Amino acid sequence: MIASKISLTTRMRSELIDITDRVRGAVDQTKVKDGICYVVMPHTTAAITVNENADPSVGRDVLKAMDRLIPWDTIFEHAEGNSPAHIKASIVGSDKAFIIENGILKLGQWQGIFLCEFDGPRQRDVFVKVIEG
Amino acid sequence: MIASKISLTTRMRSELIDITDRVRGAVDQTKVKDGICYVVMPHTTAAITVNENADPSVGRDVLKAMDRLIPWDTIFEHAEGNSPAHIKASIVGSDKAFIIENGILKLGQWQGIFLCEFDGPRQRDVFVKVIEG
Amino acid sequence: MIASKISLTTRMRSELIDITDRVRGAVDQTKVKDGICYVVMPHTTAAITVNENADPSVGRDVLKAMDRLIPWDTIFEHAEGNSPAHIKASIVGSDKAFIIENGILKLGQWQGIFLCEFDGPRQRDVFVKVIEG
Repeated sequence: MIASKISLTTRMRSELIDITDRVRGAVDQTKVKDGICYVVMPHTTAAITVNENADPSVGRDVLKAMDRLIPWDTIFEHAEGNSPAHIKASIVGSDKAFIIENGILKLGQWQGIFLCEFDGPRQRDVFVKVIEG
Repeated sequence: MIASKISLTTRMRSELIDITDRVRGAVDQTKVKDGICYVVMPHTTAAITVNENADPSVGRDVLKAMDRLIPWDTIFEHAEGNSPAHIKASIVGSDKAFIIENGILKLGQWQGIFLCEFDGPRQRDVFVKVIEG
Repeated sequence: MIASKISLTTRMRSELIDITDRVRGAVDQTKVKDGICYVVMPHTTAAITVNENADPSVGRDVLKAMDRLIPWDTIFEHAEGNSPAHIKASIVGSDKAFIIENGILKLGQWQGIFLCEFDGPRQRDVFVKVIEG
């Protein structure tokens, strides 16, 4: 089954964007009842994470912590000046897998799926691929 | 194939619990010979990791390092006061994939699968889903 | 389909090694047109990451940041003295999933797949497993 693409424009340098509904929509379109859904990031200064989406302050706290761990003013070698974003991308990771059961994306009660923008604003794509089984 | 659920009660605020044997048991029950096993965490203040399980000090060192990186007394926005646990969950990650070969979970010699509790003690579930192939 | 193994020798204590071409080679050999490719690390002081491979300074910056976050001279409990490597392995993670489409590993324009050596030099193996779907 071909992967579908979620496209969006980020608005800030660092931002968590809730893409749960768009991932659910992509899963619905496949009509798959049981399987795995992969959410895959093709960019190297952004990532995918799962965290609480009930209170948006959680996402802001994640970003604040990442900025404290890898401050923007640290001197790095990469000439583009966005090494902190590349490093955060490797820490958070480029893909997540989710269970599909009875046609439903099996998330915990408080879980949402987030695109993590670490070097925006930019146009970003995320791929959603479903495997039956 | 339907996912199975591992339920357990954590005893401490931060704790690594070795769930390797329970994941192996869930894989055995599926009778799948070759495929992939997903271990998925439905909570937002806990995570799944793979690390050495021969010496339990390794797990304690991982927790100590996480506490140094994201100290509990850091001021964050989220009113529940457990932002450090949410942040650690995003750093360590909510899912892991393992290879199944000849009916055996293919782990490295020193690898074990751990539930990372970052905001316990609590009742926690972990889902194990197997795909043939 | 049986997993294939990529074997290599790392040369430094901390090092990122681009294994993209070897992963592509392993995928080509399976003749799978559509599916998922898993890259899985069986060691506990090394990891798999995805990041920019156009400029090798990005990988060096990732390693430098990891050394700042988890300095080698921090006192830990594990008697082998390589706890920082174990901790980095849990932060970066032991597996990554990639989409295969039309027989091609679907990576972003700037993405490469890296073995992260955190406690070398050593002989290391990486498993590549492909699932059709």
